[in-house]
Amino acid sequence: MKKSLKPIEELKVRLKEIAHLVSISAILSWDQEVHMPSKGADVRAESLSYLSGLIHSSFIALDTNGLLSTLKKDLDTKKVKGNDAVIVRETWKDYERQHKLSESFVKELSSVTSKAQNVWIEARKKNDFKLFQPWLEKIIKLKQQEAEMIGYKDSPYDALIDQYEPGMTAGEAAKILNDLKDFLIPFIAHLKTNTKDASRLKVKGKFLKEKQIAFNHFISKALGFDFDAGKLDVSTHPFSTNFHPHDVRITTRYKEDDLFHSIGSTIHEVGHGLYEQGITGKHFGTPLGESVSLGIHESQSRMWENIIGKSKSFWKYFYPKLQKQFPEPYKKISFDSFYNTINTVQPTLIRTESDEVTYNLHIIVRFEIEKELIEGSIEVKDLPYIWKSKMKQYLGISIPNDTLGVLQDVHWSAGLIGYFPTYSFGNLYSAQFYDTIKKTIPNLDREISKGNFAPILLWLRKNIHSKGKTYRAGELVKKITGEDLNSKYFTEYLEHKYKTT
Amino acid sequence: MKKSLKPIEELKVRLKEIAHLVSISAILSWDQEVHMPSKGADVRAESLSYLSGLIHSSFIALDTNGLLSTLKKDLDTKKVKGNDAVIVRETWKDYERQHKLSESFVKELSSVTSKAQNVWIEARKKNDFKLFQPWLEKIIKLKQQEAEMIGYKDSPYDALIDQYEPGMTAGEAAKILNDLKDFLIPFIAHLKTNTKDASRLKVKGKFLKEKQIAFNHFISKALGFDFDAGKLDVSTHPFSTNFHPHDVRITTRYKEDDLFHSIGSTIHEVGHGLYEQGITGKHFGTPLGESVSLGIHESQSRMWENIIGKSKSFWKYFYPKLQKQFPEPYKKISFDSFYNTINTVQPTLIRTESDEVTYNLHIIVRFEIEKELIEGSIEVKDLPYIWKSKMKQYLGISIPNDTLGVLQDVHWSAGLIGYFPTYSFGNLYSAQFYDTIKKTIPNLDREISKGNFAPILLWLRKNIHSKGKTYRAGELVKKITGEDLNSKYFTEYLEHKYKTT
Repeated sequence: MKKSLKPIEELKVRLKEIAHLVSISAILSWDQEVHMPSKGADVRAESLSYLSGLIHSSFIALDTNGLLSTLKKDLDTKKVKGNDAVIVRETWKDYERQHKLSESFVKELSSVTSKAQNVWIEARKKNDFKLFQPWLEKIIKLKQQEAEMIGYKDSPYDALIDQYEPGMTAGEAAKILNDLKDFLIPFIAHLKTNTKDASRLKVKGKFLKEKQIAFNHFISKALGFDFDAGKLDVSTHPFSTNFHPHDVRITTRYKEDDLFHSIGSTIHEVGHGLYEQGITGKHFGTPLGESVSLGIHESQSRMWENIIGKSKSFWKYFYPKLQKQFPEPYKKISFDSFYNTINTVQPTLIRTESDEVTYNLHIIVRFEIEKELIEGSIEVKDLPYIWKSKMKQYLGISIPNDTLGVLQDVHWSAGLIGYFPTYSFGNLYSAQFYDTIKKTIPNLDREISKGNFAPILLWLRKNIHSKGKTYRAGELVKKITGEDLNSKYFTEYLEHKYKTT
Repeated sequence: MKKSLKPIEELKVRLKEIAHLVSISAILSWDQEVHMPSKGADVRAESLSYLSGLIHSSFIALDTNGLLSTLKKDLDTKKVKGNDAVIVRETWKDYERQHKLSESFVKELSSVTSKAQNVWIEARKKNDFKLFQPWLEKIIKLKQQEAEMIGYKDSPYDALIDQYEPGMTAGEAAKILNDLKDFLIPFIAHLKTNTKDASRLKVKGKFLKEKQIAFNHFISKALGFDFDAGKLDVSTHPFSTNFHPHDVRITTRYKEDDLFHSIGSTIHEVGHGLYEQGITGKHFGTPLGESVSLGIHESQSRMWENIIGKSKSFWKYFYPKLQKQFPEPYKKISFDSFYNTINTVQPTLIRTESDEVTYNLHIIVRFEIEKELIEGSIEVKDLPYIWKSKMKQYLGISIPNDTLGVLQDVHWSAGLIGYFPTYSFGNLYSAQFYDTIKKTIPNLDREISKGNFAPILLWLRKNIHSKGKTYRAGELVKKITGEDLNSKYFTEYLEHKYKTT
C-alpha cells in the first residue's frame, strides 16, 4: 500500500511511525523518573535501549531505495515547496548527521558516556576529579572525532553546538557571550556593593507539600497550562517532556522549608510545557511539529520564570493569593520586601541555584572551557584550576572543592558538549522577544497584574509555538525582532530591573 | 551476528524483543488508565495500535526462514528438551493460532469490537439492548468464524475457551460448572432462609481516602507485595498489569462511604501482583516467564481476596489495626459482627458487586449463554429474556432492566468470548490448591492470625509462580493436588465456612 504513495507522503508516514517510537520512549522515561519502582531499573534500561535502536534503524531506513536522497534533490531543484520543503530540509539535516557517524562510533560513545556517568557520580561524591579525568579525556577525544566526522568550517566546536542550536557557530556564540560577560562582571560587582538590604534573604517557614502542590497547580493553570492536555507531577529533578501537544508532562520538586524551590522551577517547566502544548498537533511526526532549538525552548521557560514570573506586575496579582495560602510567614512580609527577596542577586557556587543575573556567568565559564577543550587549547587535567580561577575572576567567589565546582553538572559526563550555551541563549532570546511583545501588546504590565496572561500566550502561540521548525532559530529571531540574536535586550532588561529597585 | 546463533537461541533473542514491545505496550496502557490527561486519548490509541501491529508482525516473523517450524520439528522428534521444549511448545501454540487467522479477519474483528464497545456504552446508558443487538450479532458471527479457522473437536466454543484457559474444552467446562451450579442453587436458597442476622449489612461511615490508601498499602505490604518492585495506584476500575516481575503495577478505587469497596479489590489485585512478582525474572521474554492461564491467575487473586482475606484468622490479625485506623465506627463493632458483615451472602444484580458464593452463578449464566450463542442454539435477540429467566431460576432475583442485566459487562462487546468461565475456574483452583496448602503447612491458621503470610507466599512461589508455563493448567492442578480440576474443594470450603457461622 505504501508503495503507491508519493515520496513526500511516504516520508510523512515513516516519520510519523518514528514519532510514535520517540513519544513511547518519552513515556517510558517519564515513568522512570516519576513512578518506576527501584527494581524496575534494569529492564527499563533494556526497553529504552531496544527502542533507541529501533528509532535509529527506522531513521536510517528513510533512505532505503533513495527515498530521502531523491526528495533532497527535489528540494535543491525547488520541486518540493512550502511546508514539504521544511520537512525535507530538516529531516535531511538530521539524517546527514546520523549517517556521517559510523555505527561503531555511536556504540562506543554510548558505552563510554554510560559508564562515565557512573564514574562522575562517584567522583562527585568523593570529591575526586582525578577519578573522572580519564573518562572526560575519552569523551573529549570522542567528541573531537565526532566533529571531524560531521565536518565544520572554523572550529570543531561548530559541529557540536549545531546539534543543539542549529545554525549557531563557535565564533558567533563567543562574540555574543563575550559581550554579555563584559556587561555582567562590572554589573554584578556594582550590585554587590550597593545591596546591603537585609530583606534580600531566604524567607523562613514551614510550607506543607500538599499546600505547595495546590499553589503550583493554581499558578500553572493561571498562566495557561492546559491540564486536560498535560500533568504536573513530582520528581527528583524538575523536567518537562511531551508525548504529543495533547499530552505534555512537567514535574517539579518540593522542599518544605523553601517555597521558592518549587515555584520557580514550576513556572520554568510551565514555560517549556506551554511551548509544547502550542505546537500544532496535526504536524505530529514532522519537523513542523517540533520545537526550533534548545535555545528557543529555553527562551520560553526563562521568559515565564524570570521576565514575567519575577516581575512586580506578576506578583501584584499572585502575592495576595500566596499570602492567603501561606499566611505564616507571608502575612507579615511587605510586597516590596517579598519582591526583593525573590530577586536577590548573589554569586553562588551552584549553577542551578543561581539567580537570573549571575546564572549567565556560570554558563560562560562552562562554554569557554568546553570550547577550548574541543579546540585542543587546554587540557582536561587542568580543569579544576581553570574552573577556580574563572569563577574567582568572573563571580568573585572561591571554590572550596571540585564537588561544588567543576564536578557539579552531569552534562559533560553524558557527552553533552555544546549544550550549555543554549541556556544563556534562552535568556537572550527571551529578553529580545519580550521587547517586541511589549511593543505589540498595549498595557502589558496592567494585564499581567490583573492575572490576564492570555495576550502573551496568544502572541507566543502565533509567532513561535505554532511555527514548528519552519524557521531556524536565527531566522526566527530576525523575523520577529528585526535583529540577529544579541545581548543588548537582556542587558537593558537587567539594567532597568536592578537599577530601579 | 544473530545468524551465527543456534535456532533456539535465535528464537529466545527474538522473543525477548517481542516481550519488550509487549511490556512497553503495558506501560502505555497503565499510564492511560492511571495518569493520561483526557486530550491525550487519540494519540495514545494510535501509539498502541502502531505497537500492536509491530508486535503482531514480529511474532509472525518468528517463522521467517522456517525458524519456528524447524524448532517445532525438533520438538516433535525430541531433539529439543527441558525448558527449551516448553519455549518451543508454547510459542508454537500461539504462533499457530495467530497464523490461522487471516490479516483481514483480525483487522475486521478489531474494527468491529472497537466500534461495538462505544455502542455498548451508549446502549447501557440508554437501557436499549436493541441498539447493541446488531453489533453483538456481528461479533458472535466473527467469533464463530474464528472458531472455524482455528479448528475444534466437539464444540466451536472449544476453540475460543482454549485461548484463555489452554487445554480446557466446552464439554469439560460445562461438566465442572454444572456440578457447581447443582450445589450452589440449593445452598444459596438455604442460606437466604437461615440468614436474618441484622449485622449482615454494609457498615456506614466516612472513610477518608488518604486513610484508606494508607491502610491498603499496609495490608498489601503485610501480604508480601514488594513495593520496590511494584506500585499501588488509583484508577476507575481496579486492575493489575506487569512490565516485568520487577515492575508490577496494581490499582484500586475508593469510595469514602464504603471501606470494603477498596479493601476487597486491593487484596484481589495484590493476589494477581504477587503472582507476577513471583515469576522468574531471568525467563523474561519466554513462556517460562509467563503465567499459566487466566484461571490460574484468578486462583491467586481469589485465594488472597476470599479464602484468606475473608477468613477469621486473617481478620484476627488485621481487625485491631482496622479499628485503630478507623475507630469511627469500628471501635463499637464486635469482631463477630464485622466478620459476618464482610461475609454477607446475598444475591445481587451486578456480578462485580457480588459475594464469593453467588458470584459463580453470575458466571454460569454468562457461560451458558455464550456457549449456546457460539454453538448456534440460541439467538442474540432473545438474550434479555434468557438472562432474566436464568437469573430468576438460579439466584431468585428479578432483573428490572437490561442495564442492570445483560448489558452490565464489557466482555462481549470486546469480543472476549470464552473468558467468563475462567473467573469461576479461579475460585475452584484456589480452593483446590488451598486444600493442599493446608495439608502442607502446619498451623496455617495460627500463622495467618499472627500476620505471617510468608509460608503461603513461599509455597505459591515454589509450586506455581516460579514455574511459568512449564505445565498447562490441567497438568499443574493434577501435579499439585493429585486431582483434575473439580468443584468439590470449593463447595466443601463454602459448606464449612457458611454452615458454621
